Amino acid sequence: MAASYELHRGQLEAILRAWGMPAIQAAVTADIMAWADLHGIDSHGMSMVPGYDDRRRSGKTSMTAQPRVVMDKPVAALIDGGGGLGHYNSYTAMNLAISKARTVGVGIAGVRNSSHFGACGYYAKMAADAGFIGMVTTSASGIQVAPTGGAEAKYGTDPIAFAAPAREGEPFLLDMATTTVAAGRIRNKANEGLPTPDGWLVAKDGSPSNDPLEASQKGGFLTPLGGTADGSSYKGYGLAVMVNVLAAGLSGATFPTDPSHTRKAGTMDIGHFFMAIDTGLLRDPAEFRAEMIAFCDSLRATKPADPQKPVMVAGDPERRNAARRRQEGIPVGPNLLAKVKAIAAASGAPWLLG
Amino acid sequence: MAASYELHRGQLEAILRAWGMPAIQAAVTADIMAWADLHGIDSHGMSMVPGYDDRRRSGKTSMTAQPRVVMDKPVAALIDGGGGLGHYNSYTAMNLAISKARTVGVGIAGVRNSSHFGACGYYAKMAADAGFIGMVTTSASGIQVAPTGGAEAKYGTDPIAFAAPAREGEPFLLDMATTTVAAGRIRNKANEGLPTPDGWLVAKDGSPSNDPLEASQKGGFLTPLGGTADGSSYKGYGLAVMVNVLAAGLSGATFPTDPSHTRKAGTMDIGHFFMAIDTGLLRDPAEFRAEMIAFCDSLRATKPADPQKPVMVAGDPERRNAARRRQEGIPVGPNLLAKVKAIAAASGAPWLLG
Repeated sequence: MAASYELHRGQLEAILRAWGMPAIQAAVTADIMAWADLHGIDSHGMSMVPGYDDRRRSGKTSMTAQPRVVMDKPVAALIDGGGGLGHYNSYTAMNLAISKARTVGVGIAGVRNSSHFGACGYYAKMAADAGFIGMVTTSASGIQVAPTGGAEAKYGTDPIAFAAPAREGEPFLLDMATTTVAAGRIRNKANEGLPTPDGWLVAKDGSPSNDPLEASQKGGFLTPLGGTADGSSYKGYGLAVMVNVLAAGLSGATFPTDPSHTRKAGTMDIGHFFMAIDTGLLRDPAEFRAEMIAFCDSLRATKPADPQKPVMVAGDPERRNAARRRQEGIPVGPNLLAKVKAIAAASGAPWLLG
Repeated sequence: MAASYELHRGQLEAILRAWGMPAIQAAVTADIMAWADLHGIDSHGMSMVPGYDDRRRSGKTSMTAQPRVVMDKPVAALIDGGGGLGHYNSYTAMNLAISKARTVGVGIAGVRNSSHFGACGYYAKMAADAGFIGMVTTSASGIQVAPTGGAEAKYGTDPIAFAAPAREGEPFLLDMATTTVAAGRIRNKANEGLPTPDGWLVAKDGSPSNDPLEASQKGGFLTPLGGTADGSSYKGYGLAVMVNVLAAGLSGATFPTDPSHTRKAGTMDIGHFFMAIDTGLLRDPAEFRAEMIAFCDSLRATKPADPQKPVMVAGDPERRNAARRRQEGIPVGPNLLAKVKAIAAASGAPWLLG
């Protein structure tokens, strides 16, 4: 099944509305989820519907909460997400950060008491689309990564996104988990019956593993970016701490130290960090943009190792996916489609996807 | 040879003074270089003296330039380094960023027209010592890294540092090149006659290599953090672009696109980025610190894969080095010592190291 972007987005919005989400929030949340699917970030769009439904029914994530600005300064604001799904909290927060950057040159918005916010890159791209540098981090609820040298999980996939304006519609857009790979790439290996490459996983005693079922079924863990001590995994581990300092530390949300979220019993209390910086803060913004275009084009013009595979810049692969899916529709596998259809029926949402 | 920290620092200061560096700048620069050596970051202290001497004699780096604040806003400042060595420019810039963060909550200082600034982590630690979150990036002059999928070098080791206050004297302090490993670790393998692990290097055609002489003698390249496409090296590559956007893009210094530095003929025109964020920006700073201590201690308490090797937090290994070297002195190998002695003699600096 591959529906048009409009139908796909409409189906998401219909389910969110059926869950009781107010109209504006549902429209924004559907935009962000459908953007992820359109751009090939399948792990963060429709595939999250079953997880969101679980959290909704268990009371861990509210679909009706409204974000509240609980602290407001010229350069920064703090938003309490009211235990709601993260997308609209985050959309509101990045808009606030951009507005502050427009006035004073830099803007930071922290969000606490939030939940999963989808694809990190969407919010960084909001800044770049408005002509600003954007930086986003979020804490994670799933504790599944062992620090370098560890045999115990202490934190999550803890992503960071960074964007900067370049040619119109082609911002530099990095969106990365601070782990070596995301769970989805491991699952793909398992589905194909292939071993995982060195460095992707460790067993529950911390020893290297090439078993794609190691983390999901055998008590093992994901690794920090770098994969092994030889590969400098202390860097990925350090970046994950940085992500948490900004997302949970600044906003006062729960650190992974406290996975039972004792301060906000019952909710996820996930924290997010949003920053926008005026590209004209210290120089002519038109010069900034011209140099970014030249830099990105110079990287794309790198002599490739394989002539069939030109060197790309962060954001290029996802834009390529989006161009294809705008033509061909957004594919959804039969298992996911059946799950989402059942959730729509149980929620009283209309079914739009064939 | 292992001299005390005081003698080691004094020798560096004497050479900088003999090169014509004004007294305050020489004292600060010697502090920063000796801090690197004390903490085991040997690649960024005394070992840089021959390189700095080359740049000084070729006119690429001035030892007498004074940093000038060329733009000053409530939240940000731009410093022109006058083509001088980077340490004092950077010390001045991070102090300005901290001062702005003290007033408005966030402070950014960009530096353009600078040169090598030593260990990135020193400046991030300045912020943490003052009770602030610190973030630092710098562009690099050596173009030696091939982007993911590339067979051509397009940028440098492009480091990032990030620090946050925790227990007094034990900040979280990440200082990392965005490459898989630094040139020093590759040189060590060559010296020992050992192959380099998978992912450290690629040959000049972009194919994987385990030859420790690949980049230094055979036309090959360093790799972005992640090492290989399987290891997600697009992440290290993306982080390197982020580093340049902040260090060169914001300040208007030369991007690696223009390695001939046509805008600042003759000088290096390296750019740096410094940011300080008040830990009390959006919450009680005492709570921030208490949670950072708990988080770092929780990470250190991770069950280790090898009971002899406890899990550490970024900054711990360097503090351990410093404690030992404060006792045992700072070791300098005979080759480097002879080179530095000859430079001291040629510069008319007194020789203090046995």
